[in-house]
Amino acid sequence: MSSARNFSNALRRTRVPKPRASIRPLTAAPRAPTVNATRAFSVSAPVKATKEVKYTTNAYPDLKRDPKFAEITAEDVQVFKDLLGSPSAVIDGVTTDAADDIEPFNGDWMRKYRGHTRLVLKPQSAQELSKVLKHCNERKLAVVPQGGNTGLVGGSVPVFDEIVINTSRMNKIRSFDEASGVLVADAGVILEVADQHLAQKDHLFPLDLGAKGSCHIGGNVATNAGGLRLLRYGSLHGNVLGLEAVLPDGTIVDSLSTLRKNNTGYDLKQLFVGAEGTIGIITAVSILCPPRPKAVNVAYFGLESFEQVRQAFKEAKGQLSEILSAFELMDGRSQKLVHESTGNKYPLEGEYPFYCVVETSGSNPDHDMEKLETFLESVMGEGIVADGVLAQDETQFQSIWRWREGITEALSHLGGTYKYDVSIPLPELYQLVDDCRERLTKLGFVGDDDSFPVRAVVGYGHMGDSNLHLNIAVRQYSKEVEKAIEPWVYEWIQKRNGSISAEHGLGLAKKEFIGYSQNETMVKLMKQLKNLYDPNGIMNPYKYI
Amino acid sequence: MSSARNFSNALRRTRVPKPRASIRPLTAAPRAPTVNATRAFSVSAPVKATKEVKYTTNAYPDLKRDPKFAEITAEDVQVFKDLLGSPSAVIDGVTTDAADDIEPFNGDWMRKYRGHTRLVLKPQSAQELSKVLKHCNERKLAVVPQGGNTGLVGGSVPVFDEIVINTSRMNKIRSFDEASGVLVADAGVILEVADQHLAQKDHLFPLDLGAKGSCHIGGNVATNAGGLRLLRYGSLHGNVLGLEAVLPDGTIVDSLSTLRKNNTGYDLKQLFVGAEGTIGIITAVSILCPPRPKAVNVAYFGLESFEQVRQAFKEAKGQLSEILSAFELMDGRSQKLVHESTGNKYPLEGEYPFYCVVETSGSNPDHDMEKLETFLESVMGEGIVADGVLAQDETQFQSIWRWREGITEALSHLGGTYKYDVSIPLPELYQLVDDCRERLTKLGFVGDDDSFPVRAVVGYGHMGDSNLHLNIAVRQYSKEVEKAIEPWVYEWIQKRNGSISAEHGLGLAKKEFIGYSQNETMVKLMKQLKNLYDPNGIMNPYKYI
Repeated sequence: MSSARNFSNALRRTRVPKPRASIRPLTAAPRAPTVNATRAFSVSAPVKATKEVKYTTNAYPDLKRDPKFAEITAEDVQVFKDLLGSPSAVIDGVTTDAADDIEPFNGDWMRKYRGHTRLVLKPQSAQELSKVLKHCNERKLAVVPQGGNTGLVGGSVPVFDEIVINTSRMNKIRSFDEASGVLVADAGVILEVADQHLAQKDHLFPLDLGAKGSCHIGGNVATNAGGLRLLRYGSLHGNVLGLEAVLPDGTIVDSLSTLRKNNTGYDLKQLFVGAEGTIGIITAVSILCPPRPKAVNVAYFGLESFEQVRQAFKEAKGQLSEILSAFELMDGRSQKLVHESTGNKYPLEGEYPFYCVVETSGSNPDHDMEKLETFLESVMGEGIVADGVLAQDETQFQSIWRWREGITEALSHLGGTYKYDVSIPLPELYQLVDDCRERLTKLGFVGDDDSFPVRAVVGYGHMGDSNLHLNIAVRQYSKEVEKAIEPWVYEWIQKRNGSISAEHGLGLAKKEFIGYSQNETMVKLMKQLKNLYDPNGIMNPYKYI
Repeated sequence: MSSARNFSNALRRTRVPKPRASIRPLTAAPRAPTVNATRAFSVSAPVKATKEVKYTTNAYPDLKRDPKFAEITAEDVQVFKDLLGSPSAVIDGVTTDAADDIEPFNGDWMRKYRGHTRLVLKPQSAQELSKVLKHCNERKLAVVPQGGNTGLVGGSVPVFDEIVINTSRMNKIRSFDEASGVLVADAGVILEVADQHLAQKDHLFPLDLGAKGSCHIGGNVATNAGGLRLLRYGSLHGNVLGLEAVLPDGTIVDSLSTLRKNNTGYDLKQLFVGAEGTIGIITAVSILCPPRPKAVNVAYFGLESFEQVRQAFKEAKGQLSEILSAFELMDGRSQKLVHESTGNKYPLEGEYPFYCVVETSGSNPDHDMEKLETFLESVMGEGIVADGVLAQDETQFQSIWRWREGITEALSHLGGTYKYDVSIPLPELYQLVDDCRERLTKLGFVGDDDSFPVRAVVGYGHMGDSNLHLNIAVRQYSKEVEKAIEPWVYEWIQKRNGSISAEHGLGLAKKEFIGYSQNETMVKLMKQLKNLYDPNGIMNPYKYI
């Protein structure tokens, strides 16, 4: 393993030498295989609970309840109680006053969406859910599937009186096979619980995201969650080997294969991955899990330009290659927000317009460190990276990741945030943030004092996946600002053949804008499929396509 | 890097020391990044061309031409000629005597299936294909999509007079972006051509298989090909980012996204991956390609039992982890066939009941070699592997792979082969071969002289994917032997929740047996989809589901 001297050598070759530009070498023992176990945040209301959340029906006055849906009656409630048996499976706000118990299921954690449901059902199995959905379908009662309710597009909460079908009581890990690495688990298992179970068997859930402490794996699959390490472990379309789901007519789709290869007919399960509960509800998944890495390292960089971020990423792909597990981008403004919100000292001494988190995961700590050191020497020596720090123990590891993952929370303390989760070809990835800031500044919306609606326009995201999170922090939501952003932002993305939703999905927030990322033929084919599986349209209405 | 001495040390600890058990250390320069460029075989008729191939209609006398399909007329041919323009786009056996030109499109390379087509069309774009299919659909003319025609289940050749739509004239690489690693190419590009194009840009096609010199990437996607390195690079469901396809009614599905993340609606493209041309024809794909490894190493092992193969695989997964790129299994009988067929000297001195090929691919030759040596020391030292050899240059590398990939060809020289491509949970993977051999032996079918119909029952395959190829080499095809194998083999697999087709697909060969791997509900849902996209049933009839 290289010693501190290597970096001094590297620095002597640096074209833009800076006295503070020292990467601290790793001196601690190789990291334990636990990855970020304590990093997950609990989803909680970021704004004071006393502030009333607007009903979605007020925020979207054009949305009208579809009269084809029946109203829930006391008889329906009794049917559900009989079907589900357990009193804890039904929260009945129809025949009783259960408003307080119901309310958490009506709203999202961002406090942006709020529905009018009066009934929450928590089936414990596909069989129970099958009976529930069959009744709903026959009676034309609309439903909203809900997992951990950690989404960002209003997909998992009702708009009107749709029945919430919550997966939290389907929470068993069914099996894990160490030889194949295949986990079979109920949809309502919390992602972090699944990952901790796997940790005991030296395996890793192939998905990690900030909401891991709350989100359900069924919801992850239903929304095709991407997260922090897609770069390394690939998408759920590749890792989900099978699933069990219930269609609106009660049909149980039993396709819970644990085989890595199975070419016997259409791969129907793929339709449920990312369908956001609009054609059926996932009740269990089988998923391929990689061996847990024996060594995980993380570095935090300061860089002077986005062009240098691109160069650093190119170098990381080439040099870290098979051990590169994350390459995250944060702009200077986003890190300033985290600093102001947490009061924590910056990881680096100076301030930079761009920061990156680079993570490696591998099976040999010495090899990984050598690769990482060579990479660091090269990006420092070439002047691509201005300054950097390498985590030396678990605490520093967590601390660095908090600078990346703390952005969402820091933003939530500021008031409202217009959030855009987009894919853009890499060369122009950050240009959207600059262009958006310039546009809003020119329109006179951006400023430091309270007379300006916009506090900051920040960008961060998963550089390795060409996935940018554009966030516009506002002092209050305003139609004026919204009109200045939309549809401008979508047009900007469309011109670059990007995606208006990279990983957050469509939900209610993006439903109207799908045309910017999908052509008419595709939308028509999607509607045809929706109609095939859900002819009565009861599944998560008013959303998706 | 370790020296030869390390292995000697390791051997001293070996529980079952054998004088010949020496792994030769790698002393040559690190391997060039070219992977197996010369290894692909050209698809050619393995049996003498003079021997007439039976028509499929004779082999499957119960199959009747569906009277709903129209007969091709001279007017139809003229329509196609007008639509496609170029004379090379139409091989017309309807109004002219073009039997010799047509014949290669009527049969498969295994000489097992043979159709009666009189018309081959070679559109050059999705637009041309759209017009062709629209006419076929309106006229109810059945079609068979055909790529490189390298399949093993009769999926790409006609049964009756279906029109062959061949993709060979759609053969352009449209773009490759080095920053993202995304290749966009026409369906008719040959896999090896695509890979060689990528090699120039230091990238790799994330799929490799024996037929790479002939197969088309559109066919690979349409059949969800698995191949040798799925273990490392994952399935096409994860790597295909977008595709362009034409539906029977002429609709062009333009979903050629190059984005790694795009959550805007149902992931319809997934339906075409593995659909075997039954709902549409793929005309182009965009696919995520990994950086080409800087170092590739391969070792060949002899092992005394399948239990030891499993142990070796477990060790490889744990120790080689992120650099493990293939773990292939071959039984002793299969290697004996290759030896007898090629006359080549065995890679190892003794004979063993089991052999493995273990390949690593990584970015740092020294690190890879160190991991590999540690792994070899451990599996040799523990007595898991009885003997082994490590390729020391490109020639040896190719030579070792030929012992694995030469099996198909060796078998083809023996007469006929009943081929089963199955997924079975790892612990019982090889048991099927033993059970099958025992069964056929008890029935008196297996023997060395020509009075026995069965020459050998061999097993090999992709251990890393739990994918076994069971091959029963026969002196001639016989109904008696076939009846002894089927449905017994399918029942055996069904009992273990395996798949009756891991990677070869259904085609004509497995159509009737899907029920052994998919339940009634799944088959019903599949038929519903087929009917949605192809209500006239013109796409690749008599096959799949």
